[in-house]
Amino acid sequence: AVGLAACGKKEEVAAPAAPTAAPAAPAVQTGGQEIRWRLASSFPKSLDTIHGAADVFAKMVSDATGGKFQITVHAPGELVPAFGVVDAVQQGTIDCCHTCGYYFFGKDETFAIDTAIPFGMNSRSITAWMYQGNGMKLMREFFAGYNMVNLPMGNTGAQMGGWYRKEINSPADLAGLKMRIGGFAGRVVSKLGGVPQNIPGGEIYQSLERGTIDATEWIGPYDDLKLGFHKVAPHYYYPGWWEGGAQISLYINDKQWNSLPDEYKVIVTAAASHAHVNMQAMYDARNPNALKQLIAEGAKVKRFPRDVMDAAMKARNEVYTELNDTNANWKKVFGDYSNFMAEQYQWLPLAEGSYDQYMAAQKL
Amino acid sequence: AVGLAACGKKEEVAAPAAPTAAPAAPAVQTGGQEIRWRLASSFPKSLDTIHGAADVFAKMVSDATGGKFQITVHAPGELVPAFGVVDAVQQGTIDCCHTCGYYFFGKDETFAIDTAIPFGMNSRSITAWMYQGNGMKLMREFFAGYNMVNLPMGNTGAQMGGWYRKEINSPADLAGLKMRIGGFAGRVVSKLGGVPQNIPGGEIYQSLERGTIDATEWIGPYDDLKLGFHKVAPHYYYPGWWEGGAQISLYINDKQWNSLPDEYKVIVTAAASHAHVNMQAMYDARNPNALKQLIAEGAKVKRFPRDVMDAAMKARNEVYTELNDTNANWKKVFGDYSNFMAEQYQWLPLAEGSYDQYMAAQKL
Repeated sequence: AVGLAACGKKEEVAAPAAPTAAPAAPAVQTGGQEIRWRLASSFPKSLDTIHGAADVFAKMVSDATGGKFQITVHAPGELVPAFGVVDAVQQGTIDCCHTCGYYFFGKDETFAIDTAIPFGMNSRSITAWMYQGNGMKLMREFFAGYNMVNLPMGNTGAQMGGWYRKEINSPADLAGLKMRIGGFAGRVVSKLGGVPQNIPGGEIYQSLERGTIDATEWIGPYDDLKLGFHKVAPHYYYPGWWEGGAQISLYINDKQWNSLPDEYKVIVTAAASHAHVNMQAMYDARNPNALKQLIAEGAKVKRFPRDVMDAAMKARNEVYTELNDTNANWKKVFGDYSNFMAEQYQWLPLAEGSYDQYMAAQKL
Repeated sequence: AVGLAACGKKEEVAAPAAPTAAPAAPAVQTGGQEIRWRLASSFPKSLDTIHGAADVFAKMVSDATGGKFQITVHAPGELVPAFGVVDAVQQGTIDCCHTCGYYFFGKDETFAIDTAIPFGMNSRSITAWMYQGNGMKLMREFFAGYNMVNLPMGNTGAQMGGWYRKEINSPADLAGLKMRIGGFAGRVVSKLGGVPQNIPGGEIYQSLERGTIDATEWIGPYDDLKLGFHKVAPHYYYPGWWEGGAQISLYINDKQWNSLPDEYKVIVTAAASHAHVNMQAMYDARNPNALKQLIAEGAKVKRFPRDVMDAAMKARNEVYTELNDTNANWKKVFGDYSNFMAEQYQWLPLAEGSYDQYMAAQKL
């Protein structure tokens, strides 16, 4: 999952400041309008890939406007806590945030679809759904209920399945397994007999070392290496079936969005797209060497056994059937998402999948 | 390959206009500077995905500048022929073009690396190389020799391996095979005993129908369907091993680029990134239904036999060894490209590949 490593202990939280004044309605000549926004990130600065995307975005908006549209990026706790960003954007006490929708599945499980759901779309497909399918339209309809306008702004790619103190050889090994796992995926882990744990990032290592927990998932090699889990839980499984491609989003208060000059709306959209593609590129460029280093330092990299995957898929289907029966928002959005995904997997395995499979088997 | 369907016969070519006057050097206040550029696309309007990316880009630049920076998009033949765009940008008779570098491998094979080379990087990896590896730096150094500054602006994803009148069951079936195939990949086809043909897009169907050629490659289901090849050469093979992820590029005359106000440079960069991610999304969203329709209309979809792939890989390696010995530009850029690709394939098959493989096997 996309977690919050450096947030650690209880944070000192600054009182949210008063809402930024809405800029005056633009006249015909808008080129010079000065605007200042505050962006709250849910990610600590130590996660340079994922926190860094907001910096890339903010710099691009500033540079594109000759410094007239300034967006300051704030780490968790500077303005609001990591998980307080959606409330703050909804209320307008901050202008926008960079976060993962799935942290907020407690408000409505539909939030999770905006990031990643177990056995959901991969990075390529969710981007296609957002940019060229019904994804953007459906998510914007949903987020309107929270006074927010969303833009995709980053993806981690398929994540690893986490670190385990003991091997996982069958579904039975999940029974009673105390695993730190982020939010929504915990519902599927519970159905599998596991015991999902919600532990702040900064405390995971110690919990693993002491055996308070048996396993933890995090992101992928580059981010995982920094936290050193391989030293206390060396079995490193793949794939992270709950995050086949975790999308990170920019959520903007709708009043602030609507009051932007049209030029600035376009610049924000373009800069978010740039940060979107750039984050995935950062992960792709950095993960291979981190993986090598992890292996050199003792990580034992293993594929989840097929029957473990099948048991998880079955549990996932049960959870989704329940949600379709109880949450109309989920049912509407997931229905479209699910159809789009099914079509993607009827095409992508052909040219794309067979090409990658062949290349992966070569000595390059 | 990314081809030029609607270019067809000899084009009526308008005489290139005089170079656009370089805009005056920007003063401190640049927000309002009016600039007009002309962009020549190598792609006919009928290829809405790939021609369309230039329209998306140009509209975004205009909208981001309140209409002050206007880029007009021209189809092949309007200003220069499809394959004349690089000369025109180099000479400054047009400001920029949207094309595939590999059309110009006759100038220097290094051009091909900017698009796709046989058994080269996939869409994800070449994007990572450009945005976060040494790709942008190396390609910009190379293109400086042609007075051009490049930006990635689209990718088709892994392409299909084309349409064949007869089945391909072994490498022997390639001997004497007359195949329409774009540019650089023809060198590998020749080594395999095939006879690469350079036929304008508009004449391929007729040539296939009459048996003047035995096979043709094009792009993927969405674009291929429009040309109807399945009616005369029903065997549709995958993957297109010569195009694991064809990148399309924006090439800008360097004097025009350098004379842009800084804000406009950033806007051009962000808009190109948006068009980049959006083109891949368009292909991904549209290919699945096109594939269904092709199959319903009689296309026989097949995977290239392993020994055919192996023979092609061997021929590709021979071509690259020769190039490393004869072309210093190629050797420098390909060395970095090749190392980056090797690392990508040590990581991507794990989480990403195993996830996709599992999902593709499910009834979704």
